[in-house]
Amino acid sequence: MKDYIYVDNAATTKLDADAFEAMKTFLLDEYGNASQPYSFAKNAKMALKQARISIAECINAEPEEIFFTSGGTESDNWAIKEFGSIKNERYILTSEIEHHAVLNACNKVAGEGRHVLLLHVDSKGIVSGQELRDKLKDIRRKNKNECDILVSIMLANNEIGSIEPISELACIAHDFGAILHTDAVQAVGHIPIDVKKMGIDMLSASAHKFNGPKGIGFLYKKKGVCISAHNDGGSQELGLRAGTENVAYIVAMATALKKNCDHIEDNCIKLKKLESIFVSGLENAGIDFIRNGINQLPGNVSISFADYSGEMLLHRLDLKHICVSTGSACDGERTQVSHVIKAIGVPAKYAQGTIRFSFGHNNTEEDVCSIVEAIWKIIDEKV
Amino acid sequence: MKDYIYVDNAATTKLDADAFEAMKTFLLDEYGNASQPYSFAKNAKMALKQARISIAECINAEPEEIFFTSGGTESDNWAIKEFGSIKNERYILTSEIEHHAVLNACNKVAGEGRHVLLLHVDSKGIVSGQELRDKLKDIRRKNKNECDILVSIMLANNEIGSIEPISELACIAHDFGAILHTDAVQAVGHIPIDVKKMGIDMLSASAHKFNGPKGIGFLYKKKGVCISAHNDGGSQELGLRAGTENVAYIVAMATALKKNCDHIEDNCIKLKKLESIFVSGLENAGIDFIRNGINQLPGNVSISFADYSGEMLLHRLDLKHICVSTGSACDGERTQVSHVIKAIGVPAKYAQGTIRFSFGHNNTEEDVCSIVEAIWKIIDEKV
Repeated sequence: MKDYIYVDNAATTKLDADAFEAMKTFLLDEYGNASQPYSFAKNAKMALKQARISIAECINAEPEEIFFTSGGTESDNWAIKEFGSIKNERYILTSEIEHHAVLNACNKVAGEGRHVLLLHVDSKGIVSGQELRDKLKDIRRKNKNECDILVSIMLANNEIGSIEPISELACIAHDFGAILHTDAVQAVGHIPIDVKKMGIDMLSASAHKFNGPKGIGFLYKKKGVCISAHNDGGSQELGLRAGTENVAYIVAMATALKKNCDHIEDNCIKLKKLESIFVSGLENAGIDFIRNGINQLPGNVSISFADYSGEMLLHRLDLKHICVSTGSACDGERTQVSHVIKAIGVPAKYAQGTIRFSFGHNNTEEDVCSIVEAIWKIIDEKV
Repeated sequence: MKDYIYVDNAATTKLDADAFEAMKTFLLDEYGNASQPYSFAKNAKMALKQARISIAECINAEPEEIFFTSGGTESDNWAIKEFGSIKNERYILTSEIEHHAVLNACNKVAGEGRHVLLLHVDSKGIVSGQELRDKLKDIRRKNKNECDILVSIMLANNEIGSIEPISELACIAHDFGAILHTDAVQAVGHIPIDVKKMGIDMLSASAHKFNGPKGIGFLYKKKGVCISAHNDGGSQELGLRAGTENVAYIVAMATALKKNCDHIEDNCIKLKKLESIFVSGLENAGIDFIRNGINQLPGNVSISFADYSGEMLLHRLDLKHICVSTGSACDGERTQVSHVIKAIGVPAKYAQGTIRFSFGHNNTEEDVCSIVEAIWKIIDEKV
């Protein structure tokens, strides 16, 4: 296989070797259905229990607040579509820079009669607490207590890495009897998360963003928060998420998350250093660019290059075996300026030239230097 | 690890060794996000395409009619919940012996205003075409063409193995402009399925029932059949099922299905022989029992023992390292007589003593003899 420099860790990450080893047992030997009562299924059942405890610990939740899903998209869809009572008016407040899993789920329920309100962001991609407070006040003034309100704001943006003030937004939501859900798909395993301290009521996560496998994730749901099942059927996951448990992937997810959380500070220091080398490298090369976002996730560098096409740059970097992204992987085929870049108002001269470099803890300083050199050559060729 | 005799293949199956090998590459090396446009993701994308072609061939569908999901439960929920237009009256006709993934999804939408009608089954668990026709006639008489009708009948029952007359039911459904969905979770890879010949419009399948991994499945949806997304978000799966593709499991599922389908006749002959040895063994031992169902899935033997508790038998067999099931694994914790056993009217003397033995192609004649001997000893001890 060719030797690639992979800097698209926000799209997906390399599976952790220990996570793979942990998974193997449950793929090959302990294949019993974890919902069966006989001894052959006991180890699978125990592993499921242990994984739930371990994952809960990583975000300071209780084990029975962790519900396994097929990934971040399902978790988001579940939280958004199944929140609130069909007898009440239902409101969802979300931001204009959410992942499409949130935005499109909101669009779907808006078409079914729920009220969806979009919150704006500033030029750094940050939601305003004041706007949230004003909108909530307005809803409560009109509806008194006869409505269910969900506030769904991502913990960190997948394109520009900006970290939202979730604790503050949760406080405001609670002041108005609303529930706070956060799409933390990009954040879990990368920055410390304490759902209790931060006041988070529901949280979505996806294993493949923190060196677990693709196709598994979880929804944290605080005790007492009522949502109905998104997948009805058997009695798995306290009857709230039916389907035979994917024990192998769940165990791998728990292993990868624990490992990432155990090294979260070291990884952060390493990634911030790589970022800094990268950004100064671009500056020193005299390249005209702006960096998007603020207080970004470690390793996430969204750069808008002046007078250049992000798509073209992506393909030219690809020819040099460097993997980057123009925006969200989920929109891999789309080439327009993304909704996030539009929302933060990147000037026209730069907007088209946006590339997300997302470094991972496998990247080296040599990788960074090679990327800067490659970009410099590509842009220089054009000039 | 202890040496178990595993005869609970209807609950889940052992992962095929080739399927595991096929999966490994995409777990360890080719970890690129299949929705990304760079070369590093090319092999993942190609593998996804190839898996879709291979799976489609196994049921005589077109590749673009195969949509990957997290398993049978999701496929069932998708088909049932997202069918029909919210502008129209919506009807769902299903049978009283469906899996809970179908029944509970129907209950959910019934609570949201859709009309759910239950079809009865005879003492063998077979749905009557005449009852379906009568009910459809009645709906159309009342609603003319101003309603959307889904008929959802399982291809083979998970507890008693009875195979429903799907081709006939599909014909009747189509006569009234209804769409036929079948929960084929127990059948795919075990009996030949040709969606075109059988007139199936939608079909649910789950990999772990045919020696693939747990947590992956697919929905076949005939071109032209309109359903909206169950998981909204990114543009994966033609925009109908969002979420980063679980390439490793998808490739494993395709490998396992192809292999099962390639050996479907041999497996059937082998399993029917094991069944026959088993049933005559019980008869020769003078055990009082009835066998449930008709025209059963190969390997599926539902036995109701006279004056005995199925739960007690299960646990005593477990002590002898034999894994069997009282009913659906998804209801593993429940110990009452199942809805299926009730629906077919198993006499009270036998109903409580129901055990599902589901043989797989890994089982041997020695396994069967050991099981008969074990049952004989357990029942004899009681006497």
